[in-house]
Amino acid sequence: MTWNSFGRIFRCTTWGESHGVAIGCVVDGVPSQLSLCEADIQQFLDQRKPAQNKYTTQRKESDKVSILSGVFDGVTTGTPIALMIHNEDQRSKDYGEIAQSFRPGHADYTYHAKYGVRDYRGGGRSSARETAMRVAAGAIARKVLAPYGIIIRACMVQMGEHKIDVARFDWNACSHNPFWCPDSVMAQQWEDYLDGIRKDGSSVGAIIEVHAEHVPVGWGAPIYAKLDADLAAAFMSINAVKAVEIGDGFASAALRGEQNADEMFYTEGKVGFRSNHAGGILGGISTGQTITARFAVKPTSSILTHVESITSAGEAMQLRTKGRHDPCVGIRAVPVAEAMMACVLADHALLARSYGHPIIPTL
Amino acid sequence: MTWNSFGRIFRCTTWGESHGVAIGCVVDGVPSQLSLCEADIQQFLDQRKPAQNKYTTQRKESDKVSILSGVFDGVTTGTPIALMIHNEDQRSKDYGEIAQSFRPGHADYTYHAKYGVRDYRGGGRSSARETAMRVAAGAIARKVLAPYGIIIRACMVQMGEHKIDVARFDWNACSHNPFWCPDSVMAQQWEDYLDGIRKDGSSVGAIIEVHAEHVPVGWGAPIYAKLDADLAAAFMSINAVKAVEIGDGFASAALRGEQNADEMFYTEGKVGFRSNHAGGILGGISTGQTITARFAVKPTSSILTHVESITSAGEAMQLRTKGRHDPCVGIRAVPVAEAMMACVLADHALLARSYGHPIIPTL
Amino acid sequence: MTWNSFGRIFRCTTWGESHGVAIGCVVDGVPSQLSLCEADIQQFLDQRKPAQNKYTTQRKESDKVSILSGVFDGVTTGTPIALMIHNEDQRSKDYGEIAQSFRPGHADYTYHAKYGVRDYRGGGRSSARETAMRVAAGAIARKVLAPYGIIIRACMVQMGEHKIDVARFDWNACSHNPFWCPDSVMAQQWEDYLDGIRKDGSSVGAIIEVHAEHVPVGWGAPIYAKLDADLAAAFMSINAVKAVEIGDGFASAALRGEQNADEMFYTEGKVGFRSNHAGGILGGISTGQTITARFAVKPTSSILTHVESITSAGEAMQLRTKGRHDPCVGIRAVPVAEAMMACVLADHALLARSYGHPIIPTL
Amino acid sequence: MTWNSFGRIFRCTTWGESHGVAIGCVVDGVPSQLSLCEADIQQFLDQRKPAQNKYTTQRKESDKVSILSGVFDGVTTGTPIALMIHNEDQRSKDYGEIAQSFRPGHADYTYHAKYGVRDYRGGGRSSARETAMRVAAGAIARKVLAPYGIIIRACMVQMGEHKIDVARFDWNACSHNPFWCPDSVMAQQWEDYLDGIRKDGSSVGAIIEVHAEHVPVGWGAPIYAKLDADLAAAFMSINAVKAVEIGDGFASAALRGEQNADEMFYTEGKVGFRSNHAGGILGGISTGQTITARFAVKPTSSILTHVESITSAGEAMQLRTKGRHDPCVGIRAVPVAEAMMACVLADHALLARSYGHPIIPTL
Repeated sequence: MTWNSFGRIFRCTTWGESHGVAIGCVVDGVPSQLSLCEADIQQFLDQRKPAQNKYTTQRKESDKVSILSGVFDGVTTGTPIALMIHNEDQRSKDYGEIAQSFRPGHADYTYHAKYGVRDYRGGGRSSARETAMRVAAGAIARKVLAPYGIIIRACMVQMGEHKIDVARFDWNACSHNPFWCPDSVMAQQWEDYLDGIRKDGSSVGAIIEVHAEHVPVGWGAPIYAKLDADLAAAFMSINAVKAVEIGDGFASAALRGEQNADEMFYTEGKVGFRSNHAGGILGGISTGQTITARFAVKPTSSILTHVESITSAGEAMQLRTKGRHDPCVGIRAVPVAEAMMACVLADHALLARSYGHPIIPTL
Repeated sequence: MTWNSFGRIFRCTTWGESHGVAIGCVVDGVPSQLSLCEADIQQFLDQRKPAQNKYTTQRKESDKVSILSGVFDGVTTGTPIALMIHNEDQRSKDYGEIAQSFRPGHADYTYHAKYGVRDYRGGGRSSARETAMRVAAGAIARKVLAPYGIIIRACMVQMGEHKIDVARFDWNACSHNPFWCPDSVMAQQWEDYLDGIRKDGSSVGAIIEVHAEHVPVGWGAPIYAKLDADLAAAFMSINAVKAVEIGDGFASAALRGEQNADEMFYTEGKVGFRSNHAGGILGGISTGQTITARFAVKPTSSILTHVESITSAGEAMQLRTKGRHDPCVGIRAVPVAEAMMACVLADHALLARSYGHPIIPTL
Repeated sequence: MTWNSFGRIFRCTTWGESHGVAIGCVVDGVPSQLSLCEADIQQFLDQRKPAQNKYTTQRKESDKVSILSGVFDGVTTGTPIALMIHNEDQRSKDYGEIAQSFRPGHADYTYHAKYGVRDYRGGGRSSARETAMRVAAGAIARKVLAPYGIIIRACMVQMGEHKIDVARFDWNACSHNPFWCPDSVMAQQWEDYLDGIRKDGSSVGAIIEVHAEHVPVGWGAPIYAKLDADLAAAFMSINAVKAVEIGDGFASAALRGEQNADEMFYTEGKVGFRSNHAGGILGGISTGQTITARFAVKPTSSILTHVESITSAGEAMQLRTKGRHDPCVGIRAVPVAEAMMACVLADHALLARSYGHPIIPTL
Repeated sequence: MTWNSFGRIFRCTTWGESHGVAIGCVVDGVPSQLSLCEADIQQFLDQRKPAQNKYTTQRKESDKVSILSGVFDGVTTGTPIALMIHNEDQRSKDYGEIAQSFRPGHADYTYHAKYGVRDYRGGGRSSARETAMRVAAGAIARKVLAPYGIIIRACMVQMGEHKIDVARFDWNACSHNPFWCPDSVMAQQWEDYLDGIRKDGSSVGAIIEVHAEHVPVGWGAPIYAKLDADLAAAFMSINAVKAVEIGDGFASAALRGEQNADEMFYTEGKVGFRSNHAGGILGGISTGQTITARFAVKPTSSILTHVESITSAGEAMQLRTKGRHDPCVGIRAVPVAEAMMACVLADHALLARSYGHPIIPTL
C-alpha cells in the first residue's frame, strides 16, 4: 500500500489500524504563526466520537488527541504537525470469526487478496476509525482558512429511504438531534426508523450534504486538480462512500441549457448569480458562490443478519458479525465531510496564493 | 494553473487550447516494447471526432494524431510519448462577443477572475477539445492493459429526462445509433428529442455508464489512491461532469446492510459473488467483478437562448452564443469515459506490479 | 521510464529523442499575465546551440522554438505552455555501429538492459539534445523571477586539468571566449588545449560554476525539498554530470567550525555576512547571499579512440564512435546550468509565496 | 514548510523537533508479508546513537523505537508503518542565548526569517536528530532490498584535512574504531586530532563514502528521477551536507574520454567492466557494478569559540554555543548515509518492478 497521503501543499498523511496501539497523522505544509492547541482539534474529534448515543457504535473511545510536533509556544512553526490518538477500547476477541472469513460488502476479501495478510481486528486499516485523523487534520485546515471567513458545515439529508423535506431545511436544527439532520420533523422519524434498524441488527445508508460559504472566486487548478475533482476524490476516499455530486449533480443530466445556466448580474459593484446549479464551481474553479456537494454512504457491512460467505480456507459459510457497529455510519461521516472540505480548500487556498490568484478578487 | 497532469506511474500531461495552433499530450510511464502506431490511437479519436452527424458540433476537425517521440521501429521505447493534433477549423470570428462577456454556466467568468486574461476563442483551455488528448492517452493505456484481457466500454443511459429501459440493455446496440445508446428503442426516441433540442438552439445533459470487465482482484491503493477515488477524480475532471457514482452509488443510501451485501461463494475453485452492488470495488480495491461507474454531464452552456449575463466592463447584457456547439455534449463524452477508465486502470496495473500484488490472484 | 518531469509548482515535462521528429516540453504552473514570446526563449537557446564554433559538435541545428499553447495576445494565460523544436540535421547513418554495440561510459548498455529496445540514433533520449528544452523552460522561469531582480549566470571554471585562476575571475570575460570562461588568460590556453583534444578525436571533462544573486532570504522547503537538495538533483539530472557542490562544497570537509562560520552583522538595518562558505543556503533555505554551486561534467563518451566493448549479440569488439560530437560537452552545459538554477528558483519562488514567506524579508 | 516526505513509491515522511515530545516517521509503500520487528530497526539506530564515546555529543538518548502501525503478527501488512522515538534528555536550558540570536553557519537565521518563529531548542527541526528517522526508515528499506542480496555500507574517508590512504582501505576496519574509518592507521591519527578539536571547543568537517554492491542492472528512471539525481538529493538533504559525487565525481572533470570509459567485456556469459569511473550509474540507470558515492559534511556550527553575530532584536553580539555538540558530526552521518542509499534503492526496486525492468537481467 502506498498513498496514505492527500493534498498537494497542505498535505496530510494518516496511519494506524482500528485495534493497533494508536492512530495518527502528519499534517505538512501548514504555514507558521497560526495559533494551535489540542483543544482546537479536540472539539471536532468530539463531534465524531463513537458511543455518544445509541445510534452509533458502542465502542468507548475518548479519542484524546496529542500534538507531538510542529507547535511551539502555542503557534505553528511551519514544521510538520504530528497528531496521535491512542486506541483504548480494543475488544479484539469480538473479531475471531472475521479472521478466517470475509464479510460481504466489506474490504476483508480485497485486502486479503491484495496483501495476503491483514489485521482483521476491527477492519484494521479499512476501519472507519481512520477518519478520526481526517477530522483532526480538518481542524488544522480550518486555521488556514480562518482569514477568509469561510463557513463549512455538513448535514445528513437522507437516511435509508427517508429524505428530508428541503422546505424545512434549517442549519440550526442539526445540533438538536443525533443525526445532524437539518429537518427537525424528519429527525424525529429517523429516531424510530434507526432504532428499528439497530434492533434488527441491520444497518442503513445515508446521504450527506456539505456546504462551504464565502469561498473566494478563483480557487481551483484546472485541468486535473479541479476543485470539484479534488472534492470528488476526497469524499470518495472516505470509507463506504459510493457516490459524489457537486451542485445539481445527477439532476443536471435532466436539465436543458437555459435551465442549468446560473444567470449573472451586477449588484453594488459585485457579481451576483440568480441561481447555483453549478454548486459554486465552474471549470474546476470556485465562482464565489456557496460550494455544495453531496455524497452517499452505503450501509455498514457488519450486520447481525446471516449472509452467505466463504472462508479463506475455501469453505462456504453463513456469516454474522457480532462486534459493536454503527447502524448508520453516515452519522459519523458528517464531521468527516466538513473536514475533507476544509482540507481540500486549505490546499487550494495555499495554491491560489502561490500564483497570486485570484487576479480580480471582485470583478 | 498547474496540474495539467494525471496519473502516478502511467502519467499523462495535456496542453493546448481549442483555437490555438495545436493540442497535445505527453504520456509518461509507458513500459517499453509495446507495439504502437498512430492508427492504434486514431481509431479511438475517430469515435470522439465532432461533426459525425447532426447531433454533435459541426466544427470540422479530422483530429489526425502524430506520434512525436517514444516509439521506435513500431514499439514503445519506455521514453515519454508525445502526441499532437493540429487544430484546423478555427472559426474564431464566432467568438467576438464572448471575449468581453461571460456565458452563464461556463468557465468564462472563473478563468477571467482567476487569471485576469483568457483565450476566449472557443473556450480556450476549458473547451471539450481538451478531451481529445485523454482519448489518445486512453488508447495507449489500453496497450498497457492488453495482457489482462480487460474489456472497457461505455454508453449513454440517460439523455435529458429520458432514461433507457435497463431490461433492454444491450452493448451491441451502442454502435447502431449516434448516441452510444444500449437501448435501441430509446435511441429512436432520442433522435426526435435531441433534434428538437437542437432546433431550439438549446442543449441537454446526459448520464454515461462505463464498465471494465475482467479487472483482476487486488488493484487499487488505499487510503487516498483508492481505485474509486481515482475514478471519481478522473471522471469529475472531464469538462461538464457534475456527479460520479460507483456500483449502486446514490441508490445504496436507501439500502439496508443485508441488501447491499454482495454475497460470496466458491465455484470451481474461484470466488463468486451473488450480486455487484459494490460496482467491483471494496475498500478502494478491485474485487475481480466488473467495475461499474456512472457520471452526469450537464447541458452545454453555449446556447442560442438569451440568458442574463454581464460584461467584464461592468455592464448587464443578454447573452446568446452563436458558435457551433454540441446539443448534447454527453455523446462525445462516451469515448472519453472509456479513456479515463483505461488510464486509471493502467496506472493501477503498474502500481500493483510494483508491489507484486495481488498476492493471491485467485483465492 | 517515467519522471520526465521536474519541479513542484513550476513544473516542466520534456520529451523527444535526438533523431526523432522533434523535441519539446510542457511548462506547467506558470502564472498568468507574464509577457512571453518566442524571441524571449530563442535568445537562450541560441547560447546553447551546437556548431557555433569548432569546439562544439558540428551538427547543424537552428533550434528554432515554437510556442504551441499557453500564450495569448503576447501574455501567458496560466495554462500549460507547450514548446517544440523540430530536429533538422539527423545524419542517422553515422550511428549504424552503435545500434548493435555499447559505447563504454555511455547509457547505451543501461538503456538496452532496462528497456530491451532503444532509439540508438544519436543517443536517443539520453542525448545532450534533451537539455535544449531545459534551456527553453529556463527562459520562462526567468520571467517568473523577473520581479525579484535575481541575476543568474554560469561559467566554466575548469577544463580537463586546467583550472582558472580565481584572482582573474571576471564575469565580463565570459562572453569574449567560446568557453564561457571568466579568466581571459586561461581561455586562451584552453583554445590550444581543446584543439588538441579535438584533433586527437578525444574529449575532456569540465567544471561549471553557477551563481544566483539577489535571491531573497527564506526560499527553500526543508527537509526534503531543501533548496540545495533540489539544486543537487537538478544539476545531477543533466547528462554527464557526476558531482555537485554548494558553497565551499567538498572543501568544507577540511574546515573547522570557526573557519566555516559566515559571521553576521548589521549594516544599515540589514543583515550582512563576512563570508559565504555556505553558498547562500543554510538549512535548505536561502540566506539572501549569492547562491553558488558547481558541478562536474565528465568527458563525452563518444570518441574516435578505440575502446574495448561488446555487442548485444554477445561478441567482444573494439569500438570507435564516428559521429559528430562535442570534445568538451561542458561548454554547452553552461546555459543549461543557468536554466536549471532558474527553474529551481522559480519553483521555490511560487512555493514561498504560497506560505507568505519570508515572514521577515529584511530582519 | 512542506515536503517532509521523500521517495515515490517507498515513501518516508518524518516529523519532530530535537527537544519536542518525540520524533517519528511514517513509512508508506512497504510491500506486505515482510518480517519486521522493532529489533530489526533498533540495531541500526544504535549505530547512530549519540554519546557512544567522547567523540560524539554527550546527549544521552536511548533512541528506543516503537512500531505503532503497519505490522501484524510479525509481518508487514502493506499499510503505513508509523515509528516513534520519545525524546529523553532535553536539557533545554542550554539553549537560552540561541533563542534570541543566530549561530553563524546554522539554520537559525534562515528559519527565523522564513517562518518568523522557531523552536530554538537544540535546533528544533533543523537538528541532526531528524536523521534518526532516516536510519529507522533505512532499516525497513533493507527489508525490501533483502531478496536482491544488495550490500550497503558506508565509511568516513576524510576528517578535516586528513584523508585515508586508499591503499589501506579495508571495510573490516570500520567497526574497530569510533569513526567508521576503513584505514586503521589513519583512525589512530584521527583520535588525537579529534580530541584536540573537541578540547578546543571547535568542530571539523568530513567526507563520507557509501557503496551499494550487487544492485541489479536497470534500476533508475531517466530523465528527472535518475538514480544519481535521487541519490544527490537524498544526501544533500542531510543536515550539514554541502557536496555529493558519484563515481569519480569532480575528478572526472580532469579526465579524457578514453580514461573515463569503463571498458566492457563478456565473462562467463555476463557483462564485465574493466573499471568503474561511472560509480555504477550510466544515464541515471544502474550498470550492475557497485554504486559508489561520496558526500561532504561541513563542521558543526555550534562551537565554543566566539564568533561575530547578531540578535533578532537588531544588536551585534559575540556568540559562543555552550550546549553538548558533536565535534565531528560526520561520524554519525555514516549510518545515515547507508540509510539514504537503502531508501533510494528500495524506491527504485519497486519502480523497476512496476515496469518489469530490467528486461534483460543479464545480457
